[in-house]
Amino acid sequence: MSDTIFSKIIRGEIPSHKVYEDDKVFAFLDIGPLSKGHTLVIPKEAVPTLDRLSDESAAAIGRVLPRICRAVMKATGASDFNVLQNNGKSAHQVVMHVHFHIIPRFGEEGLGIEWNTTAFDHGAGAALAKAISANL
Amino acid sequence: MSDTIFSKIIRGEIPSHKVYEDDKVFAFLDIGPLSKGHTLVIPKEAVPTLDRLSDESAAAIGRVLPRICRAVMKATGASDFNVLQNNGKSAHQVVMHVHFHIIPRFGEEGLGIEWNTTAFDHGAGAALAKAISANL
Repeated sequence: MSDTIFSKIIRGEIPSHKVYEDDKVFAFLDIGPLSKGHTLVIPKEAVPTLDRLSDESAAAIGRVLPRICRAVMKATGASDFNVLQNNGKSAHQVVMHVHFHIIPRFGEEGLGIEWNTTAFDHGAGAALAKAISANL
Repeated sequence: MSDTIFSKIIRGEIPSHKVYEDDKVFAFLDIGPLSKGHTLVIPKEAVPTLDRLSDESAAAIGRVLPRICRAVMKATGASDFNVLQNNGKSAHQVVMHVHFHIIPRFGEEGLGIEWNTTAFDHGAGAALAKAISANL
């Protein structure tokens, strides 16, 4: 079970600045925003990480994400944005209920990203792709 | 139109380490990985940014994301991971075809995130939530 602050927000026990709701999805403004319009899109299903989310909830979030992104961009005037979804404490997850951040970009304001690539070996890559595929 | 290197990968004109394919979605290893197992999940529909993606393609990607995440974690042994989707050059997008990064986290290896929060005003927030909602 994973009854976090987000479950309380969905149930209306904690107030939020709601922007969208349907039977499977809830979206509201992040009150610790990285930029104006920083929005959280969450499933009503209370699971901590994306790998544990049901196909139905994941499809419902996927379907509505472009629409919410469009609305956030229109309302804020941003043209660029990041969508980020963190899983696990070492990956910067704080609330243990799946959430997608929509983070508009305004010049330097928005999500800070460090892109430190590692070496890629095509032999090992072929084996790894096979191993991932076999686990699907 | 948006015929990028990813369209060529989908069509098999450029080789890739494929991990998944269905009628709407294609997934393969990033050859400039941030960590072992760094995977790209893309729609076959060739649009540059998520806000332009059709509901059908977006739902198809959403539905399969948890499954691909589980397979990547099983194959690599990672427990934590980030999902990142960039839109626009200032938001670190390089290939102009929608793509979701699945980036396993191993200690310091993975996605580097800088989290610089900005002030939130509840009055302005209420008005902004209303404006986003009105654009949905």
